[in-house]
Amino acid sequence: MTATATTPTHPLLAAHAGVLDEIRQALTTRSYYSRYPESPSPRVYGESAAAEGLAAHEAHLGQPYAALLGQPTDGTFVGSEVSPYGPELGVTYPALDLDAGLEAARHAIPAWRDAGPQVRAAVCVEIIDRINRRSFEIANAVMHTSGQPFVMSFQAGGPHAQDRAIEAVAAGLVEQERVPSSVLWEKPGKDREGKPAPLRMQKDYRIVPRGIALVIGCNTFPTWNAYPGIFASLVTGNPVVVKPHPRAVLPLAISVEIARTVLEEAGFDPALVQLAAEGDGQGLAKTLAERDEVAIIDYTGGPSFGGWLEQAGAAAGKLVFTEKAGINTIVVDSTDDLRGTLGNLAFSLALYSGQMCTAPQNIYVPEGGVDTDEGHLSFDEFGERLAGAIGRLTGDDAKAVELLGATVNDQVRTNADSLAAIAGEAGGRVVLDSRRITHPTWADAVVRAPGLVALDVTREDVYTQECFGPVGFLIRTASTEQSLAQLADTIREHGAMTAAVYSTSEDVLDAARQAAAAGGVALSENLTGQVFVNQTAAFSDYHGTGANPAANAAYTDAAFVAGRFRVITSRRHV
Amino acid sequence: MTATATTPTHPLLAAHAGVLDEIRQALTTRSYYSRYPESPSPRVYGESAAAEGLAAHEAHLGQPYAALLGQPTDGTFVGSEVSPYGPELGVTYPALDLDAGLEAARHAIPAWRDAGPQVRAAVCVEIIDRINRRSFEIANAVMHTSGQPFVMSFQAGGPHAQDRAIEAVAAGLVEQERVPSSVLWEKPGKDREGKPAPLRMQKDYRIVPRGIALVIGCNTFPTWNAYPGIFASLVTGNPVVVKPHPRAVLPLAISVEIARTVLEEAGFDPALVQLAAEGDGQGLAKTLAERDEVAIIDYTGGPSFGGWLEQAGAAAGKLVFTEKAGINTIVVDSTDDLRGTLGNLAFSLALYSGQMCTAPQNIYVPEGGVDTDEGHLSFDEFGERLAGAIGRLTGDDAKAVELLGATVNDQVRTNADSLAAIAGEAGGRVVLDSRRITHPTWADAVVRAPGLVALDVTREDVYTQECFGPVGFLIRTASTEQSLAQLADTIREHGAMTAAVYSTSEDVLDAARQAAAAGGVALSENLTGQVFVNQTAAFSDYHGTGANPAANAAYTDAAFVAGRFRVITSRRHV
Repeated sequence: MTATATTPTHPLLAAHAGVLDEIRQALTTRSYYSRYPESPSPRVYGESAAAEGLAAHEAHLGQPYAALLGQPTDGTFVGSEVSPYGPELGVTYPALDLDAGLEAARHAIPAWRDAGPQVRAAVCVEIIDRINRRSFEIANAVMHTSGQPFVMSFQAGGPHAQDRAIEAVAAGLVEQERVPSSVLWEKPGKDREGKPAPLRMQKDYRIVPRGIALVIGCNTFPTWNAYPGIFASLVTGNPVVVKPHPRAVLPLAISVEIARTVLEEAGFDPALVQLAAEGDGQGLAKTLAERDEVAIIDYTGGPSFGGWLEQAGAAAGKLVFTEKAGINTIVVDSTDDLRGTLGNLAFSLALYSGQMCTAPQNIYVPEGGVDTDEGHLSFDEFGERLAGAIGRLTGDDAKAVELLGATVNDQVRTNADSLAAIAGEAGGRVVLDSRRITHPTWADAVVRAPGLVALDVTREDVYTQECFGPVGFLIRTASTEQSLAQLADTIREHGAMTAAVYSTSEDVLDAARQAAAAGGVALSENLTGQVFVNQTAAFSDYHGTGANPAANAAYTDAAFVAGRFRVITSRRHV
Repeated sequence: MTATATTPTHPLLAAHAGVLDEIRQALTTRSYYSRYPESPSPRVYGESAAAEGLAAHEAHLGQPYAALLGQPTDGTFVGSEVSPYGPELGVTYPALDLDAGLEAARHAIPAWRDAGPQVRAAVCVEIIDRINRRSFEIANAVMHTSGQPFVMSFQAGGPHAQDRAIEAVAAGLVEQERVPSSVLWEKPGKDREGKPAPLRMQKDYRIVPRGIALVIGCNTFPTWNAYPGIFASLVTGNPVVVKPHPRAVLPLAISVEIARTVLEEAGFDPALVQLAAEGDGQGLAKTLAERDEVAIIDYTGGPSFGGWLEQAGAAAGKLVFTEKAGINTIVVDSTDDLRGTLGNLAFSLALYSGQMCTAPQNIYVPEGGVDTDEGHLSFDEFGERLAGAIGRLTGDDAKAVELLGATVNDQVRTNADSLAAIAGEAGGRVVLDSRRITHPTWADAVVRAPGLVALDVTREDVYTQECFGPVGFLIRTASTEQSLAQLADTIREHGAMTAAVYSTSEDVLDAARQAAAAGGVALSENLTGQVFVNQTAAFSDYHGTGANPAANAAYTDAAFVAGRFRVITSRRHV
């Protein structure tokens, strides 16, 4: 680096300069932007794309993942993935030699740091574009690790995750570009004779990465929840070690392979992105999190380990971003579109059997019932109508499995089996039991439709715990006012990723906005169409707020990227 | 708040709109900007300003600080300040009733939150403008709590601190304004007949504060180090509890009084800024830091409590910004302006007897000596010349005290008395002992000029500890290459707020920039005039980097403000 820094150039920067302009602009406006088509239609991705993606997926099965053999490894292979749809994947991954891997990452920093934000962003765009081209392959990998239904695996694991990735690139790029590379500082002054004699200095501001970043993936959204951290760290100059959930390695192995290939082709060290795979129960996340070399940690998963990470990581001076768990909340007050309301709610509850960090759990309904365009419904009648909507949506097994997917683990299955027990314990009532569905293609998959338990607002002991999976609580409150107070209070204390309200009253909607602000949660109002409370759009909706215990960060705000790099000034008189 | 948010207005916003434009622009460019004249000249602040400020200061002495009686208090008064220049101040402050004070702060949030970023920024500007008008009063308070000499108390405690305050306002304002208040989101789509039928949503983004902020002040720079946290939190919507160092309460009491007055006049709750004073040894910082209501902590002070805060605060989900201690470093390689180099270094060492977090401590000089415009100097000769420059600068007692000020505490005095012991222990040599100076006005002040100990680079055990006060180490290295390697290694491990290099070689300067980037410290190059390594200019120089253990934050980068607020979205179809 010379005193007057020159802007680095790179062929990928020339290729993607227009994209960088687009995403800078999209981030600023926060209106609609998507780079990657969400439809798996052959008209979009090509006639042969689906078949080729499936074939590529199947070629991985039962094989060692040789494309990652360039990583430092001790020669052992790890992997124990079993599809929630039944089959063992049989893929094994070269175990990362941690000492050598972290040293390789450290060694890769200077050239990546000195490439500058724009070149890094362009390389990241190229990586994500190449990931996009393998969306069908990744969709199959997401399906057979998370249990998501195929179309959702494609969308949430593919284009939607890719849009979140590129949003993180945009956020990191813009954040770095806010720091000028060099300025002339001129302080007015006079010499001893009173003539103007300003003090002049040139100040160069150099972006330096924080260090090695660790991204700890989750089982249910292996790519969607990992990409923001990966690309936020990478674009700001940090090498990334990706530690997938032991039951959802393949989607991230493919992603890491692509990143390494692009980095190498672009003239950078592939050690900037490495996969640290493990089999079940090896505790690799903790081992890595405790390494001195790790300076940034992004985590999605359970609150127990997440809480430990927040404490231990912060104690060691690391930057820790977590998304843990919460109790997502719906307040039903009134509606002028009952059919749309019920359909939308039923879909939100059914999608991926409620195994989304954004799926609703607690539905507050006043004991006096709900005014609708189909007349007044009592609390019980509303419950029956919602149960009916769920029943219709999930009544046909073959169609239902394409919405519900498969249950991902035993905890979810236990929760689905526990509705009667919960209702009994809570003095409540099972409004709809969780129906068992046999998957027409994957007989070993455990597929469950959502169930509903009605209980009283006093039973906070039951409904303020996350009951992950196909379980919804219909909570009887004294009034919508109490519903909103409970929304604010329970979310402030226990956290939530999402909240929604249904009301025809502007006063109630205003009060709901106040309650959401007090609880620190984003609010969706009167969703009756094709947008669901579970879903957030990259570049426009923040995912999480950082303002309640469910997550200490949001995709993607400035706080998510601003601390991932530091600015080192050098100044001199000129 | 209605669905379509209207921009709040306020008379102060009309009054200060131009200032907000100026400071937004200044923050973006990072070139020279100052709102508050640094010269205490009567031509700038008025013929009577100095006398009136002194009188106002003296009116506080021996009195209860009645202007803060509006705060919730249990009726007791606390305070035990003794001027480093000798006299007890005798000021007492109403003890804050913590339960009631925190409840009052919480209660003040909604109206302040809903006032919006621009109104908050304008109110903050008004507060700082009013603080500026009391600069002479505050200068006396800073002098008699920190021990700074008067002109420095005026500049660093007054206009320079005020410029840092307004920089924090700018950073917080701009950060909030990056989030649009509302957007129309329109996702392309088609209806069943294939006609365009976009999904349209209005999304409102509401800025909410993180919670109550605690600012823990330090003894040496009560205002300069507290204002950034105070105003960064306030402008982003958070109420602030200011907990001054027990020996430096008065400057912050005046500042808090002004803030409360302006807030009240502007129609806001004065509980948005409260003073939590304590006498020595009450441990109030820890008590406050552990309160659940406190969500943000800004701290300047020793590394032991700072480290505890980082851990305990983070464990409790609080946002913690610290500035602790470090070993500021100079590398001397060569110079074409020996006189300027020595004068600049001597001044940096002497200013406030080295009691600045930015004052140099470790001066690396190669054993082969230094090429200068006055010929080659051996290691020993360079040391003698630097000692001579310090001697000349501080040789006249009456002039010296206006540069040195008074020692602030017994630890500094012990350090100043320990040069022979340190040299003996380290197998080194006292090049210049710390001279005792009798203050012509304040006979009880302990005034010390800087001393220098020469020792070998191998004695890291000695020079990698902070020796706060008038002690410099001349460290004999094998080469400038080794000097730079030590700079990077020791700062990465032990931290530093500042670093500087003197060299006529572009290669060495390049290498120094690399070493500074590796160590994570800002670098000043060849300072030989009226800019000193100790000094950073608001809006242009970052103070600290957050990239080494001395501080986890920088005044004022985006990371310092971005996490102080959160964004709550509400969205609905339109």
